[in-house]
Amino acid sequence: MTTLNQPPSNPKRADAERNRERILTAARAAFAEPYAEISMAEISRRAGVGMATLYRNFASRRELLESLYADEVDVICNAAVRVEGETPGEVLINWLQQFFAFASHKRHVALELLADAGGASPVLGESRARGLAAGQPLFDAARQSCEIRNDLTLEQILDMIVAIATINSDSRYTEPILQTALDGLRL
Amino acid sequence: MTTLNQPPSNPKRADAERNRERILTAARAAFAEPYAEISMAEISRRAGVGMATLYRNFASRRELLESLYADEVDVICNAAVRVEGETPGEVLINWLQQFFAFASHKRHVALELLADAGGASPVLGESRARGLAAGQPLFDAARQSCEIRNDLTLEQILDMIVAIATINSDSRYTEPILQTALDGLRL
Repeated sequence: MTTLNQPPSNPKRADAERNRERILTAARAAFAEPYAEISMAEISRRAGVGMATLYRNFASRRELLESLYADEVDVICNAAVRVEGETPGEVLINWLQQFFAFASHKRHVALELLADAGGASPVLGESRARGLAAGQPLFDAARQSCEIRNDLTLEQILDMIVAIATINSDSRYTEPILQTALDGLRL
Repeated sequence: MTTLNQPPSNPKRADAERNRERILTAARAAFAEPYAEISMAEISRRAGVGMATLYRNFASRRELLESLYADEVDVICNAAVRVEGETPGEVLINWLQQFFAFASHKRHVALELLADAGGASPVLGESRARGLAAGQPLFDAARQSCEIRNDLTLEQILDMIVAIATINSDSRYTEPILQTALDGLRL
């Protein structure tokens, strides 16, 4: 891990960053496969890096899972700033679509993390609060422009989407269900 | 159990039926309490019947759970025949509201049953098919009268409702979420 503290111009540092990214990319794909049992050895194989390099970057399977999870939360929070749409209501709906993809995907990582951490992990608790905080400005703007119903909060909307994301099926099956719920939000 | 085969005019038979109903009513209320650990002794206490009577009616905790579950499935299937509404779409929506209550309630029993039966129970598998068959005529009529969207099946609708029923909160919190999803169904 010490190489990570060297200046970016250092080729060792660039190597280390590439390795870290390769590991995270391989792990992200691996944990997206439902029912697959993913060991550190399997991730090392898929990423094409040795076990020493893997453990230099992530001291434990749990640390790797927490990094993966935190990365996905970052992505959905950053999406709230960048998401586009013709009206505030469209912006919110487009972000909720992305939130659904996030919720579907993070499930496996969250379940692995819960199993690995033997119950709670602080990363899981924070993610709910961070997602809510990121979406709140979009929700407020859509509410102000009277495009969405006013009998439920953003927290309720996100819980609805997370619930739909737990339906065990492919996206062709779940997509119209999500669409139904999102259409129900519109005034 | 032999008393149950005697003619209804027999006072012993009436007693036995009363006991069975008392047990089922007490068990239904007991298993509706989330996180409560409900033993056969607890049900005997709550129903005000002795353990001998309890076990004469239900040979095991699993048999009692299966009876409870099958009863609830009967109720929601019978409701599909009796439910009212001004239009076919209203009839379907009203039944789906009842299905939500069923799905919220049956969850605890289903989880207990899964734990008790060590995985699968044939009663659980049948319930999905029975619910679908009961709702299909209502769904077809609502579709024919062009009151609901046509990009998802009744199976997808029921999965959506079951998913919303898994949200861990009181009905004041989940009711607007259900309403949103049902509004999304309407054309």
